[in-house]
Order: sequence, then C-alpha cells, then structure tokens
Amino acid sequence: MDNQPRSEFDLIGRFFADLGAHRADVLLGVGDDCALLEVPVGLSLAVSIDTLVAGIHFFHDCDAEAVGHKSLAVGLSDLAAMGASPAWATLALTLPERNDDWLAAFARGFGDLARTYGVRLVGGDTTRGPLSVTVQVHGLVRPAAAVRRDGARPGDLVWVSGTLGDAGLALRHLREGDPVDPALRARLERPDPRVALGSALRGIATAMIDLSDGLAGDLGHILAASGVGAEIDLAAVPLSSAVASRIASEGDWSLPLSSGDDYELCFCAPPEQASLIGSLGNTLSCALSVVGRIRPEPGLVARMPSGESITLTNAGYDHFSDNT
Amino acid sequence: MDNQPRSEFDLIGRFFADLGAHRADVLLGVGDDCALLEVPVGLSLAVSIDTLVAGIHFFHDCDAEAVGHKSLAVGLSDLAAMGASPAWATLALTLPERNDDWLAAFARGFGDLARTYGVRLVGGDTTRGPLSVTVQVHGLVRPAAAVRRDGARPGDLVWVSGTLGDAGLALRHLREGDPVDPALRARLERPDPRVALGSALRGIATAMIDLSDGLAGDLGHILAASGVGAEIDLAAVPLSSAVASRIASEGDWSLPLSSGDDYELCFCAPPEQASLIGSLGNTLSCALSVVGRIRPEPGLVARMPSGESITLTNAGYDHFSDNT
Repeated sequence: MDNQPRSEFDLIGRFFADLGAHRADVLLGVGDDCALLEVPVGLSLAVSIDTLVAGIHFFHDCDAEAVGHKSLAVGLSDLAAMGASPAWATLALTLPERNDDWLAAFARGFGDLARTYGVRLVGGDTTRGPLSVTVQVHGLVRPAAAVRRDGARPGDLVWVSGTLGDAGLALRHLREGDPVDPALRARLERPDPRVALGSALRGIATAMIDLSDGLAGDLGHILAASGVGAEIDLAAVPLSSAVASRIASEGDWSLPLSSGDDYELCFCAPPEQASLIGSLGNTLSCALSVVGRIRPEPGLVARMPSGESITLTNAGYDHFSDNT
Repeated sequence: MDNQPRSEFDLIGRFFADLGAHRADVLLGVGDDCALLEVPVGLSLAVSIDTLVAGIHFFHDCDAEAVGHKSLAVGLSDLAAMGASPAWATLALTLPERNDDWLAAFARGFGDLARTYGVRLVGGDTTRGPLSVTVQVHGLVRPAAAVRRDGARPGDLVWVSGTLGDAGLALRHLREGDPVDPALRARLERPDPRVALGSALRGIATAMIDLSDGLAGDLGHILAASGVGAEIDLAAVPLSSAVASRIASEGDWSLPLSSGDDYELCFCAPPEQASLIGSLGNTLSCALSVVGRIRPEPGLVARMPSGESITLTNAGYDHFSDNT
C-alpha cells in the first residue's frame, strides 16, 4: 500500500553498495532482482536470519555503528555454531526516516565486521517504518562436517568459550543509568562472533550452539535435540571479575545462566578430545572451559558452589530471569 | 537488550514447523542454529530479501492470510524475474504480541503459496516489536541462463504480462473507503507471482524485472542497467476494464505507470522471438503484450494515445505519483 516515491529509499542503497569483502563467488551482487551466488561443489549452504528491533534488542539511541556491527555479528555467531565458514549476507533495514549520518555509521559497523570475516553484502531492502534490522547470513560447510545440536552423547564434556554474563551485566548498568566500563559495554554492543573457533571444532565437537539466550536455555536446546541431560558445575563457569563480583554480592546466577547476548559457543565433545581442544584454545587465544558433563538422564542439573544441586527446568529456565 | 523470556516467542515457531513443500535438498530445516541446504552442481543460488511493514505496505487490519501470502509472493516474483526456480524461504516475523489466530492465518497464507511453488520454509526468527514481515527467498538457476536487467539491446521489443494498475486501483478504493471488487482486491493482497513465465523466458528474454513499483520506474531500471532507452505506446499497455475506465475518466496514467504492487513481469526480447513468446503466453494462459521498443538513445518516451510523445524522467517518474 506504499504509494510513496521509492526513489529516496532506493538512494539509501548507495550506502550499502560494495560493502564487505570482495568474493569471486558473487556472480551478481546488489542491484538486480536477485543476487546470484556460487556454492562450491561438495559444500552445503548454511543460512540463518535474525531481526534486531529498536527498543527491544537495542536502545533507540544506540550508536548506529554498534547496531550495524551487532546485526551481522549475531548471524555470524549462528554460522560459527554450525562450523560453517561465512560467505554472504543480505540486509533488510527499516527506518522511520532517512538519516545519512546514521546510515553511514551503520554501514561502517556492518562493513568493518563483514570485511573481518570475508563476508560480502549481496542484497537488501530498505523500507520506511519503525527502526529494525534483519540480516540473513549465508555460510558454507561440508554437510557431514556441520556441527548440529543433536549429537551430544552421555559422557561428553560440556565446554564454553570466553566468559559468560558480561553482556547481561552491561545491560543492567545501562538500564540502571550507571556508568559502564567500555570493555564491558563492548561485550553487549559489539560481540565478536567465534567464527574461527566454530570452524576449528568441525570433526571434534559432537554438538554446538551459540549462547544468545544464556547457558541454561541454550544448553537446554542441545539436550532436547540430543535426547540427553547434563550436570553443570557453576563453580567452573568462566566469569569476568565484574560478573563474579556481582554474583558474589547478590547470590544470583541469572547473569551467566539466563541473560542473553554473550555470543560465546557452547559445545560438547568426548573427554579424549580435551587436550586437543585445549591446544585449539591456545592457538586461537580463546579461553575454553569445561563446565559440565552430558548424562543419559534428561534434565539439566546445576551444582552450586555450596555443593547443593538444583534441577533447572526445561521450560527456558525463566525462574533465573529478571521477569519472573 | 531483551531480557524477557524468549519461550513464548520460541513457541511461535511451532506455527512454522514443516511449512511448505517437502524437499529432499533440505538437509536440516527449522530448529538448529542454521538451515543446511544442498545446491545442485551446475546451478547457482539466487536470493532476494523483502520487508513488508504494517501501515506502510499493508493495512494494520489486513487479513493475516493475505499478509502471509503476499510476504512470500513478492520474493517469488523476484525469483521469477531472474528466471530462477523457487526452492527455500526464511521468515523473520516481528509481532507486537502473540496472537494465535493471526499466526495460524498467516501461516496458512504463506504455506499454501509455498506448497504451490514447491518452496520449503527452512528457518526464521520471531521477535517482539511493531508488526513487520521479512522474507528471504532462495531459488536455483544455471548462471548463464539467469535473466538480468542489463541485457536489453536496441530493437528489442518490451513486453509485459497480465494487466497493469489493478493493485493500485484497489488501493485507491480502500483508501477512499469505497467498496472494492474482490477480484480487484485480490490483485493487491494476493498477487500471483509469474514463476512459470519467468522460467520459460530463460534463453529468450534479454532482460527482465518484476513490476513492483510501476512500469515507468521498473522499466527505467532495465534501461539504466542496459545503457539504452525505450519508447512505450500507452495505447498498448494492457489494462483491466476497471483501470481503463479510471484512466478514461481522469486522464491520469499513474495507475499503470507508477503505482506499484502489480508483480507482473516486464521483459525485453528481439522481435524474432515474438511468435515463440506469443505461444508461451498461450501455453501458460498468461496474457503477454508488446508495449514498446528499446532504442539506443537513453531515456523513456511515452507515446500518448493522442499521438503526443512525452519524456518520462529518469528519477523514478515521481510526477506520475499521487504524492508529488
């Protein structure tokens, strides 16, 4: 029903021409009815689509460069969790009005991350409406090597990368109007997807997921898909000193367990792979921690540092969140 | 920054499980970090992403089944314009609140059209926010056979399918609060993408585009990409009787020239292909009309039924629209 001239919004496309890395497998990029892309023989296409909505997933006044970065990062994190190598992205951007400064900053954030990971923006749509960003990422992986959620087996160790809960803590500070350490804030607004780690874990991890909703819920997806359970040891969950202090003072584990946006990887692997995984972490300068073990019995049990064990529900572990 | 439990919105995904046609080339569909898809050797991947925003592209109270249909149809129309065969779709749906009746109707409209064209929904994201729908379609085409916008040559005839301006007229009636003939309204709300025609024109059409913004602007994209111009004969533009009457009474050609949403195909082909194209139209029961001819001189000239010729600007032909 939009009878308005589209020319102004067509012009927006100029901010996104030639964005990202040059790739010879892009037969036709932005500017036709479709992009045309070449998938190499023997590889399958991995795709994931995600939307970030202003006021829900980012603050309306959030730095546009960070929004551009994060809108691509969340998709790259999904590719990483599959062990797929990033290739192309498409972008559907809805804006209340044209704002060239905002667009230039958004394109800078998106483009810098795209170049870092060899991704080309190959198509998009710009429309008028409440601010939101949808990005689809496309990656490549040998189908037999893709790491799914359904391969965890009893006895596998459960690993996570990095530290958990930092993004959630940054968000709490921002909501409370407190000053936020820039490094902590970057964990929320400019997550660095674990692309190299995801690829390195092909053939090693039995199951993998990225931590977008918190360890309890996301590990729960692996457990449900694999038909197994797990016990995790909260004392082994890797925490930054800021998050560790917050937990020590409040006794509340919701930051690592159920606040989202960490974009670390959680994966399972047989214990005999532990030393190989350890050396991968060293090679990639990426902290990797064992936080638990897969069990045949369904359900997720957390052993508290006090020694007490509690069973986390299967319904999203909402009792750990702020809203229940 | 969304710390709300995602479980409710995760549940929405159940409306979209197994939506569309079964396809053996879907190695992994909805429910993991990525979908995994198999592109046959020798074919390239054609992708297009489009967003429909409530209040901009459809009325807030629009029938959800129609929204589901149209959100996929606009993408299939892009694949048709490339000559690509539809294969898979992803869906990013943003909803102000969960509404199961709305979701069931939306899924019905989307799913029926998907099955008609052999499309499988392979992934998606559901988020909370102002109502909008983003769909990415994925098609397959031999790279050398894909019909781009840049192949029009002087002497080529310019063709369009169907009749033009119907969707625009339906929209005017709805805006004016007038009763709308159901068939005319369906042209706006349930466009039928010209998938079979697009595929049949591989190797015949030199350039093709779908008419989402009106003949003048969309043909203008072909002209710009091909480095040519065209003369069109307004008396030859195919019109329904309703649109023809409106033009006769108002003397305003904006309905076929610059109102959007027709989702017919506009294509160019050498004159010696005319009889083959005519028989294609018969086979497909699809009206195909020659509306003009490509010229070496840049610009788009319209010959009015009165015999007078006017030059349409290159800037989107906005002087034909309601808003200028």
